Amino acid sequence: MIKKSFSFSSSTVNYYFNADFNYLEQLVSKDNAVIVTDENVFAKHQKKFKGWKSIIIKAGEQHKVQATVDDIIQQLIDVGADRNTTLVGVGGGVITDITGYVAGIYMRGIAFGFVPTSILAMVDAAIGGKNGIDVGLYKNMVGLIKQPAFLLYDFSLLKSLPKEEWVNGFAEVIKHACIKDAPMFNMLEENKLDYFQKDPENLAKLIQRNALLKTKVVVTDEFENGDRKLLNFGHTIGHAVENLYKIPHGHAVSIGMGVACKFSEEITGFKDTARVVNVLKQYGLPPQFEFDKEETFRILKSDKKKSNQSINYVLLNKIGKATIVPLPFEQIHALINNL
Amino acid sequence: MIKKSFSFSSSTVNYYFNADFNYLEQLVSKDNAVIVTDENVFAKHQKKFKGWKSIIIKAGEQHKVQATVDDIIQQLIDVGADRNTTLVGVGGGVITDITGYVAGIYMRGIAFGFVPTSILAMVDAAIGGKNGIDVGLYKNMVGLIKQPAFLLYDFSLLKSLPKEEWVNGFAEVIKHACIKDAPMFNMLEENKLDYFQKDPENLAKLIQRNALLKTKVVVTDEFENGDRKLLNFGHTIGHAVENLYKIPHGHAVSIGMGVACKFSEEITGFKDTARVVNVLKQYGLPPQFEFDKEETFRILKSDKKKSNQSINYVLLNKIGKATIVPLPFEQIHALINNL
Ligand SMILES: NC(=O)c1ccc[n+]([C@@H]2O[C@H](COP(=O)([O-])OP(=O)(O)OC[C@H]3O[C@@H](n4cnc5c(N)ncnc54)[C@H](O)[C@@H]3O)[C@@H](O)[C@H]2O)c1
Ligand SMILES: NC(=O)c1ccc[n+]([C@@H]2O[C@H](COP(=O)([O-])OP(=O)(O)OC[C@H]3O[C@@H](n4cnc5c(N)ncnc54)[C@H](O)[C@@H]3O)[C@@H](O)[C@H]2O)c1
Ligand SMILES: [Zn+2]
Ligand SMILES: [Zn+2]
Repeated sequence: MIKKSFSFSSSTVNYYFNADFNYLEQLVSKDNAVIVTDENVFAKHQKKFKGWKSIIIKAGEQHKVQATVDDIIQQLIDVGADRNTTLVGVGGGVITDITGYVAGIYMRGIAFGFVPTSILAMVDAAIGGKNGIDVGLYKNMVGLIKQPAFLLYDFSLLKSLPKEEWVNGFAEVIKHACIKDAPMFNMLEENKLDYFQKDPENLAKLIQRNALLKTKVVVTDEFENGDRKLLNFGHTIGHAVENLYKIPHGHAVSIGMGVACKFSEEITGFKDTARVVNVLKQYGLPPQFEFDKEETFRILKSDKKKSNQSINYVLLNKIGKATIVPLPFEQIHALINNL
Repeated sequence: MIKKSFSFSSSTVNYYFNADFNYLEQLVSKDNAVIVTDENVFAKHQKKFKGWKSIIIKAGEQHKVQATVDDIIQQLIDVGADRNTTLVGVGGGVITDITGYVAGIYMRGIAFGFVPTSILAMVDAAIGGKNGIDVGLYKNMVGLIKQPAFLLYDFSLLKSLPKEEWVNGFAEVIKHACIKDAPMFNMLEENKLDYFQKDPENLAKLIQRNALLKTKVVVTDEFENGDRKLLNFGHTIGHAVENLYKIPHGHAVSIGMGVACKFSEEITGFKDTARVVNVLKQYGLPPQFEFDKEETFRILKSDKKKSNQSINYVLLNKIGKATIVPLPFEQIHALINNL
């Protein structure tokens, strides 16, 4: 096991990499903890939950809503959770988002930690303290920024993760490589998804590298005034096509990264679109997509405040180096039409 | 107008005493603000809200619940509120609690300020950053600690406050005097409620004095590790009888203060119970009450964690000086039976 600690504005987060799920008992006592997980994770790892008070919610983004929060709070009251209780989210990003949120508001805030079980949660969602729920069509409309006390990484949990969720998670891994880590990009180029699926040691290294990369960005910019914005690479057009075509998040981000590379060619003189596109394909992600340009532009614009005339777009200078450029709507419109 | 600023752990709160409601326009622009108020306050001061986007909720503690939060959030989405929006709670403690809470979670937190309109909100609820909602029978079960950006005091708003709400608010004023401010206690002894109702200047002074008293306590102990606990004077038995007999909060606190004085006699040798009882009466509050001793003790005990064997009770050494004494349940039981 490898332990690392990071200090945020108002708390310290302990990371336990290469840990075993059972190590959780060293971090919180079964008496004072309540686990929140989803039905899929629970079904695949039932034995691990033995002896822990557990709240099991339905799986899927459609349950990341207030009704589920109400349900969890009622169950917390029923089991007598109080200010000394620690909430532990064991699951993908939906679970970490909702658990962090409930812990933030229950009795004006109780302690919480995460055991992320999806690639996406391990490298992205569990890190950085953003949490929350969706409201109608609006993703993450309600939430908080509050750091967990700990993150426990048991990579063996990934054995049960469905293939498409591996692919989704790797979209964020490739994103990290593009914006911050050229050597990792090279390494990804030289391999394929099933290499990591079959090689626990290299998978562990890759996940830890990504978790630390995101952590470093977030520690230096907890409240998203600067560098943290780079993590939105691929997410501008990404969110628009995700909404429009109801495709998986990883696919949408992949499409968004493809588009952002094209924009970068025009604006920063970025030259490696082909390499990015190839890596995305290599990991089962769609870099190109025939989307309705006008409709996508319309959604993109409507996402923003009416008074805004431009979007801060994350572009690449080169692989491993990203930059934020304010692009006027008109220019974005033209760039999209040129695709 | 008198402006004062106080620095909390992560923000500064500006207080504007003796201000006019219209001064709000100097603090937030009408374009970027949304007011939250209740039907009573709105009905009595309709003109003041002209030109402000306003969300009007039903009045009363029974509406300090998630359903109202859902409703406010939907209305915020509908009017296009975003990260640049400031939420302004104009009302009593129900409004300040719920507005602070919604502002804390909407888009992971937007700015907010208060215009308290009840005595209780002015001297207590609007101050200190605690906010939240009730869940079933549990008061303030869900919430946050987050400071408002500003507090605007327009004392003329109190003209429409019903008499019983004046009385409720004065319970907290007397509480403040008992625990921290002997000269104020003397001054209260020399006057009556209608003196303050009829003399705007002395009312303004009294409210400001109380607002600053609570602020000082909270600034030095934002997260309630020490001195802030003194503010619970009268609230231990108070909450129990409030639950049991559904009496107004001020009445319950008054009864609780009466009991705490009696306990103090036994434990600290406090000698001025009669003076406290007289002041309470003078302001229309019931210091004595025939409550079911066993039932009250049972509620009091069930409020606490099972593992706890005692309660940190706020007692008086003398008028203006309070102390916290851990009292074992057995002792409390005996003290109650001796009343
Ligand atoms: N807070 C943040 O900073 C942040 C960042 C990125 C994404 N997110 C959020 O994360 C969510 C997406 O995360 P996700 O992709 O992990 O979604 P998810 O939690 O829905 O998990 C995806 C699916 O995989 C299943 N699953 C997870 N781990 C499993 C395992 N070990 N074995 C078997 N099945 C498993 C889940 O039950 C679910 O069906 C979104 O709601 C998104 O908004 C948050
Ligand atoms: N956050 C804190 O630290 C804190 C501290 C103490 C109390 N509180 C909370 O405050 C709430 C009680 O506050 P409250 O007593 O102000 O209750 P309230 O907001 O319900 O107001 C009492 C009544 O007076 C009416 N009212 C208020 N101002 C008026 C005005 N100017 N003219 C006419 N009518 C007016 C309201 O409509 C309501 O009917 C409780 O929910 C309590 O939990 C919070
Ligand atoms: Zn993403
Ligand atoms: Zn009170």
